[in-house]
Amino acid sequence: MNAIDQISNSQRNAAQRSAPKTVAVVGATGAVGLEFLTCLAERNFPIKQLKLLASKRSAGKVLSFKGQDIVVEELTEHSFHGVDIALFSAGGDISKQYAPIAVKAGCVVVDNSSAFRMTDGVPLVVPEINPEAVAAHNGIIANPNCSTIIAMTPLWPIHKVNPLRRVTAATYQAASRAGAAAMAELEDSTRAYLDGQEYAPKVLPHPYAFNLFSHNSKIDPQTGYNDEEAKMTRESRKIFGVPDLRVSATCVRVPVLRAHAVAITFECERPIGWQTVRHIIADAPGVQLVDDREHNLFPMPRDASHQDDILVGRIRQDLSDPTGHSVSLFVAGDQLLKGAALNAVQIAELL
Amino acid sequence: MNAIDQISNSQRNAAQRSAPKTVAVVGATGAVGLEFLTCLAERNFPIKQLKLLASKRSAGKVLSFKGQDIVVEELTEHSFHGVDIALFSAGGDISKQYAPIAVKAGCVVVDNSSAFRMTDGVPLVVPEINPEAVAAHNGIIANPNCSTIIAMTPLWPIHKVNPLRRVTAATYQAASRAGAAAMAELEDSTRAYLDGQEYAPKVLPHPYAFNLFSHNSKIDPQTGYNDEEAKMTRESRKIFGVPDLRVSATCVRVPVLRAHAVAITFECERPIGWQTVRHIIADAPGVQLVDDREHNLFPMPRDASHQDDILVGRIRQDLSDPTGHSVSLFVAGDQLLKGAALNAVQIAELL
Repeated sequence: MNAIDQISNSQRNAAQRSAPKTVAVVGATGAVGLEFLTCLAERNFPIKQLKLLASKRSAGKVLSFKGQDIVVEELTEHSFHGVDIALFSAGGDISKQYAPIAVKAGCVVVDNSSAFRMTDGVPLVVPEINPEAVAAHNGIIANPNCSTIIAMTPLWPIHKVNPLRRVTAATYQAASRAGAAAMAELEDSTRAYLDGQEYAPKVLPHPYAFNLFSHNSKIDPQTGYNDEEAKMTRESRKIFGVPDLRVSATCVRVPVLRAHAVAITFECERPIGWQTVRHIIADAPGVQLVDDREHNLFPMPRDASHQDDILVGRIRQDLSDPTGHSVSLFVAGDQLLKGAALNAVQIAELL
Repeated sequence: MNAIDQISNSQRNAAQRSAPKTVAVVGATGAVGLEFLTCLAERNFPIKQLKLLASKRSAGKVLSFKGQDIVVEELTEHSFHGVDIALFSAGGDISKQYAPIAVKAGCVVVDNSSAFRMTDGVPLVVPEINPEAVAAHNGIIANPNCSTIIAMTPLWPIHKVNPLRRVTAATYQAASRAGAAAMAELEDSTRAYLDGQEYAPKVLPHPYAFNLFSHNSKIDPQTGYNDEEAKMTRESRKIFGVPDLRVSATCVRVPVLRAHAVAITFECERPIGWQTVRHIIADAPGVQLVDDREHNLFPMPRDASHQDDILVGRIRQDLSDPTGHSVSLFVAGDQLLKGAALNAVQIAELL
């Protein structure tokens, strides 16, 4: 897209800013789908009409939006007629098949799957980081991976002051990342364990009750990184606009329901003190400082659940780097909100 | 202790090697105490007589050892008469008070608390790492912190080939680290959560059901590290005999019952390939390679529980270090066994 297209896009956006939109939610009955409804309602998104779309299996279900019952319709090639904005969260295959159809029908797609994230011409956006990237869209805007959003949103305001050179992250990922069925499996298998009953995992490949395991996405046989970890590296580079940003993650699923935590150590181009980082975080958008050394109160998934902000704490100098370039911190963020639905709705608000 | 004392100690040890010992277990009814009994039995430790000691509250309880019932006695100043080896795991205060009394009575103490770990003249021993340090004892030998043992045992054989320069660790720590009551609290609070009941934490400061939180040991107001993390740094230095080893940890309690996991990235003095690390781990004592990229099978707390070996996998080059000096891996080890009781009994075997 050239500069003139961008300007005309931006003018069109300005004109439409206050006009209520017809919005479609694809995958409306899933864990993220339901959060789309919550976010659209709570943020008073200007909606003319709301269409809820899902698989044939879920069609006919009734969901409530602002006190109004809406019947879920089956997703078909004709679903997008008259729709302004479609929020997709029904997996990569559905996005690949239906997002181009939606765009052809004149719709702007905000896609929560990984289908188009690394595609040239598709902006990958965290509104606190690169809102300006939205303008360059060609019909599809991608929502980043949840772990990427939750780890990188707090790092961006630091990067702006003192560019990041290297990020090492270990994640503590919630069941919601694998959908509502995985959340139910965590609860059901835990109850079975407590009752001394056998439980055969159906959704995830390993026992989940009082257990944890390396993220079960495909491992690159060359690098040994799993796909979740590779996403954190490549998506961070695209969102930050730093093609050689060095990010290395270890992604682990823990028996927590809906908020991810991440232990992060980062290295900056110039020396940086932990107090500086603390001041930056205290003033940054989308994050909340939870960093009480005296009372040992820091970010926890329970506190981050159902919260828009990413909680940030344990901010301290990394003493294993004597050059003073490195700081460690610990974050927790709601996987379904800022990690998925909220970020997508924030993108839709930018349109 | 001078060299002559060391030789005489070592001669005495050699003479006593096969002679059955009178062994006392201090804190016998605790989570680690019970594992002492399991380890002593399973490893066929040569025992003449076994004394089980605990607080007044637990005295009178009956525990089984190799099919024999043994009545728990109250720990007093007179408990150590005729005892050769005392295994302590009843907290730092009890160790500080009673270990010197036991030593005066002619006993060798293997102490699982942190009371004497950093004391000059007290060896801090992981038998796979520094068994030779035992010889220099003055009556007390300290067992390291569980997270330290589980993280550092796999790193030692690598360090011997290519010295470590820096270690970054994020822990996923089990309830057992806080004792049997914390394990019960994890189960009880989880059941309450599933039943929609309120649960007020009694043992740990935060809700534990489907939650995780930064290790609740005291935070150094200057450095921001908690005591568990500081232990990992200073104890690793003492065990490895490298006073300036750079270790930085983030310690987190996760809702898992009895095995810790740790995500580790380490940097060596010279470039090192992940295949080299894999070969070293495959041949090292006390560890077991669980590193199947194709089937996505890696160390898990469930698999590490009740196992002597520390499981090691996810061995891969850290791509955020372009110099090739850094490798990442993921480990899981039974907190009560190798993290505590087993390591202490292995030390006793060296005596």
